[in-house]
Parts: sequence; C-alpha cells; structure tokens
Amino acid sequence: MKIIDISMAITPEIMVYNNNPEKRPKIWLTATHEKNGIQETRISMDAHTGTHMDAPLHMIDGGDTIEHTPLEKLIVPCRVLDFSHIKEKISAEDLKQKEIHSGEFILLKTRSSFSDDFDFNFVFVDESGATYLKDKAIMGVGIDAPGIERSQPGHETHRTLLGHEIPIIEGLRLAHVDEGEYVLIALPIKLNTAEAAPMRAILLPAGSLTE
Amino acid sequence: MKIIDISMAITPEIMVYNNNPEKRPKIWLTATHEKNGIQETRISMDAHTGTHMDAPLHMIDGGDTIEHTPLEKLIVPCRVLDFSHIKEKISAEDLKQKEIHSGEFILLKTRSSFSDDFDFNFVFVDESGATYLKDKAIMGVGIDAPGIERSQPGHETHRTLLGHEIPIIEGLRLAHVDEGEYVLIALPIKLNTAEAAPMRAILLPAGSLTE
Repeated sequence: MKIIDISMAITPEIMVYNNNPEKRPKIWLTATHEKNGIQETRISMDAHTGTHMDAPLHMIDGGDTIEHTPLEKLIVPCRVLDFSHIKEKISAEDLKQKEIHSGEFILLKTRSSFSDDFDFNFVFVDESGATYLKDKAIMGVGIDAPGIERSQPGHETHRTLLGHEIPIIEGLRLAHVDEGEYVLIALPIKLNTAEAAPMRAILLPAGSLTE
Repeated sequence: MKIIDISMAITPEIMVYNNNPEKRPKIWLTATHEKNGIQETRISMDAHTGTHMDAPLHMIDGGDTIEHTPLEKLIVPCRVLDFSHIKEKISAEDLKQKEIHSGEFILLKTRSSFSDDFDFNFVFVDESGATYLKDKAIMGVGIDAPGIERSQPGHETHRTLLGHEIPIIEGLRLAHVDEGEYVLIALPIKLNTAEAAPMRAILLPAGSLTE
C-alpha cells in the first residue's frame, strides 16, 4: 500500500509562527551511549508545533479540548484541493469551484508547502471561506500553511470552524501530493485537556478503508 | 467503523519509568483566554512518554533513528495476544503456544494495562522470548507494559529486536481489548533524528484495510 506522509519533521529548525524563538522546539539528550549505554531524548515544544490539530478551546473560552474530537473524524476519506496558484487567501469564491460536499474532509494545498521557512504572508482561509465550509458541513479541514488564518483580529476563521466542531489541521506538507481523493489518517498524540496536539498525518489511496 | 484507542493519555500524572520525577511531563499555558484571547500550551516530555516507539538508536550506538522505521510496518494487520495471566515475564515457551507467524505484528496484553501506576514488577519479554520473536521474523511488537524488558543488564530483549529492525511499541493500553486479529495503525510524531517518539496507536477491525 502506498503511504504518503504529509507531516512536518519536528526538529530544532522547524518553522514556528512569526519565527518567535519562544515557540521553537528544544530537543536534548538525557542519556547517551557514551555515559549511560543507552540514548534518551527529551523535547520541549508548543502543542501547535509542525503538523498539529486545533480543538475549540484554542480560540473559544470554555471550548472542548483535543480528546473530545472523535477519532472517527480523523480516519476518513478526504480530498486534496490544489490552491497553490493563490497568492493571498482562499475565499468562498475559490472553494465554490471545487464542488465541496457535506461530510467531506478537505485538505488545502497552498504555495506554503513549497518552503520550509515561515512565510509572513502565508495563504489562509478568510471568513467567507470558513463560512462556506461551515455551511457545507464538512467533516474537517487541513491546510499546509502554518495556520488556517492570519491577520484577522477576531480569529473569525478559527471561530467559525471550531464553533461548529470542525477540526482544523495546520502545518501539513502537501507539495508532493496531487489534487484528488485519498484516505486521511491523522492521529494527534493524546494530549488530554490541551487545546491542540502535534500529530502524524498520512494519506492512503482512496478506497483503502472498508466501511 | 469501530476504532479502539490503545494509547495512554499524556498528562502531568502519567506513569513514568521508575516514577523518576525528571521523566515526568510538564505542561503549561503560554497564552490564556483571560490575558491573550486564545489558549496555547507548551509541553516538555521524554521521547519515551506514554505510548511510544523505540528505534534502534535507543539501545544500539550508531543505530537508526525513528524516521527510518517505514510507516509500512506500522499500518498493518496485527494480533493481540492475551498474556494477562502471566505474573513475571513472557518467555519463548509462552509465545510458542500462540502460533506466531512470520510477518505478524504482535501486541502483548499483560496485567500492566490494568493499572495507571508504574509497576516496578511489570511483565516483560525475556531474552528467550525476544529471540523467539526475532527467529519468527515478526513485523513488530508492542506491549502494554511501560517497557518491553526490565532488570536485564545488557538490555538483551531490546537489542535482539532492534538489532533486527523489529520496531518496539511500549506503553500501550490493552486492558479493554480482546485477544484476536485487528488492523494496527501506530503513528509516531515525526521526531526526526531521535531514538524514540510518542505516538498515537489505534486498532481497527480485521480486514478494514484493503491491500
């Protein structure tokens, strides 16, 4: 079976939001072969590091935490939509051209996947796009940009989606993936009570999962 | 589709090896709704926290790191074997009774799953058991104990398995799982260059994945 990894590698050099050094992962050895005969690593990182999922609590005071997103929403047929030609933002008008159906999990491929550096002008989903996806009652949405929105003071995109229990995956890697249908398997670590969690996300060929 | 989560929740209270406080995760907020209008969490944890995978470098100087384990070995048919009656250790004699075949991914259910506390006498796989599994050329092995071995000064079990590129999953939760056949999906976060990584592991009904 062909497995396509669509996750970002977590390293000290990984892109972080606004290049803020406080968000950078720290990775160090707590045991080494030389001293201890084994190697052990410890890591300090944001819950929003690399490829990760947002839960409602990220943007909604009192919202649900990560463990309340059913895994049934994250092991699903999905569709990759290629928006890598878009320069600024993805709006309802752009999404309408892709004929999105209720219950679809949508992965948005943007020009962000083509760089390993944080792009201060990354392509995002604007409020009209979020409202369109919410009205379509999608299962979930992922994007290969560092975030699903930027420079919207009220965080309207996050709030619209998370307020309707639509999980958001950010920081995917989709440059090597063609537009089309797949099976998504996106598993966050079980960081109970948190508003987000790093995850490993992969694609399998469409039809790989039986019902 | 019925999804069975076999992962440990990562919380500050999670069991850690030998109850060593230095191995305990620390989880704190870097942004709050009250101060920042959003919530953001940071975590510091061992790569061997909770449900995780070991790569050869954990026990073998110069061994492969976590990203060299092909995901094809971690999205596979598997079999849960119930050894919860065993008090001390799982040996070749015990494994022989289960008719293990080449290429199987084996998950070992022990009495460890029935407690959330670290058990200094957790059930482990001894050297004879590891050699038996290696000779059977299994795809991989998981256990619900905090480790796959203890009190073996030369780490023979780890070395035998990892030395033959058999991935080891430790810290599974299997108390709620019956012996039998399933599909395993075990996805470590992409902690490139590390000797281990926390993972989310789930079971699907046998036959859920097409070839």
